[in-house]
Amino acid sequence: VRASPDRIVVCTGFTQGLALLCQVLPGTGVTRIAVEEYGQPGPVRTLAAAGLAPAMLSVDDRGAVLDPAPDAEAMLLTPAHQFPLGAVLSPQRRADAARWAAGTGGLIIEDDYDGEFRYDRQPVGALQALAPDHVVYAGTASKTLAPGLRLGWLVLPARLVGAVAEAKAMADGQTSSLEQLTLAEFITSGAYDRHVRRQRLDYRRRRDRLIGALARHVPDVRLTGIAAGLHAVVELPAGRSERQVVARAAARGVAIEGLGDYALRGHTRGPALVIGYASPPSHAYTTALARLTAAIQDQ
Amino acid sequence: VRASPDRIVVCTGFTQGLALLCQVLPGTGVTRIAVEEYGQPGPVRTLAAAGLAPAMLSVDDRGAVLDPAPDAEAMLLTPAHQFPLGAVLSPQRRADAARWAAGTGGLIIEDDYDGEFRYDRQPVGALQALAPDHVVYAGTASKTLAPGLRLGWLVLPARLVGAVAEAKAMADGQTSSLEQLTLAEFITSGAYDRHVRRQRLDYRRRRDRLIGALARHVPDVRLTGIAAGLHAVVELPAGRSERQVVARAAARGVAIEGLGDYALRGHTRGPALVIGYASPPSHAYTTALARLTAAIQDQ
Repeated sequence: VRASPDRIVVCTGFTQGLALLCQVLPGTGVTRIAVEEYGQPGPVRTLAAAGLAPAMLSVDDRGAVLDPAPDAEAMLLTPAHQFPLGAVLSPQRRADAARWAAGTGGLIIEDDYDGEFRYDRQPVGALQALAPDHVVYAGTASKTLAPGLRLGWLVLPARLVGAVAEAKAMADGQTSSLEQLTLAEFITSGAYDRHVRRQRLDYRRRRDRLIGALARHVPDVRLTGIAAGLHAVVELPAGRSERQVVARAAARGVAIEGLGDYALRGHTRGPALVIGYASPPSHAYTTALARLTAAIQDQ
Repeated sequence: VRASPDRIVVCTGFTQGLALLCQVLPGTGVTRIAVEEYGQPGPVRTLAAAGLAPAMLSVDDRGAVLDPAPDAEAMLLTPAHQFPLGAVLSPQRRADAARWAAGTGGLIIEDDYDGEFRYDRQPVGALQALAPDHVVYAGTASKTLAPGLRLGWLVLPARLVGAVAEAKAMADGQTSSLEQLTLAEFITSGAYDRHVRRQRLDYRRRRDRLIGALARHVPDVRLTGIAAGLHAVVELPAGRSERQVVARAAARGVAIEGLGDYALRGHTRGPALVIGYASPPSHAYTTALARLTAAIQDQ
């Protein structure tokens, strides 16, 4: 991310960042915003409440499909790790997105919710670096530290900084200076980097153990998406019911979700589970995996 | 405050609390909101941005003047300690306000920004207790702890809880659970009460020392308002310029404000200063008082 300090607005997380943008964007001519057809439902509700009509983008294994270009003045993307399907936006499509924005004056909101956690190789750079005057980069401490710590940041095109800062001031005055100072100290001391590296190793092991447990006990499922983040998508054999597996897991005390919970224009793919593997405490992870595979096995 | 847990929405301070109410109130038929003619300018900007036209209430030494009843569906009041003038809303007017709300279906927003700090006798109860179905009580940790800690709470009439909680969820998801849990521990351990008692004593002494310094060095000024809070209003002799005294104090490194900075419909009173006495560190308070009185003396 290329970010001079005068382009950053600190906020209390992605939710607030998007809410602030929703106050500002209608005044800049944005009426429609393209979103990925699978994603968190919350942001779409926030967009709709602000009168921004969502246009759906298909998603494949190279991320959001940008050809044809969306009929919208803005796009909300998860380029580093499509949520929840798990693709990374391909270099070609990153270039396409930057060209679309520069050519049309469109705005891209880059939701980098878990970019710190990539296990196969170095993370790709932010899309924002390709077009800093057309991309709002949204970062968060929710995944690296904790969602209970409300800290996020927007890196903004210069033309939006004043209006977003004003919206932030009206919304809540400022973000906790205690939490900001604590994070700043954590970063400058080097402890944040050590923490992220340690967590990256831990989450990678958890992911590997999830893959191993599925292969051993339910070999007919297929884990998709790049080796990254805090969740995996597991495709179930055709005909299996997401709801049923989710309910069986819940009955065993394991909280997972169906891919359909994230289908924003209807669930058009085969049945699949969205499994967050960061939540169970370490001492309970083995048990959680056993219960999860048992829930999937159950017929 | 009478507050069952299901009527409380925790927020990040009064600023956010009011912003959330501004999202909800227009949908409940509120189009105009009465505010005290002297007050913080920020809330009026927030109200105006939400399309809520402010109606001005006069203020005298018994607080906001409520006869005639305001031409508005809601009122924003500082009953415990009118900001900045320093009156407490009289028992008669509290009863009038509660009767107005019950009779008209009007809503009162009670901004209790510093109710913990009263030095002359026990604090009066919240207006909210008189009409819990018509009053939103807004409390904050900004004065008792620190404005950099973003923590506040709304106690709401039952009919508003759902909509305000929904607005909060859309605005930023939740308030920092770390800060909430820390405050809860601080309260249940008894440390919060000890802190407030200690600060009350400290602020009372600061106020007494301010009064003493003014009486000795600038006996022609008059300190008004009840013995409470973290600020005092000091009336200057007729003809003196607020701006000049503020500038002279600033030149000496002392930040004060003119009463005119808080005049929301024009400054109709004599010249006066608004002096916050909580900010200077203890070791600098004597010097700050000397510089302040010198700035007032200067002709």
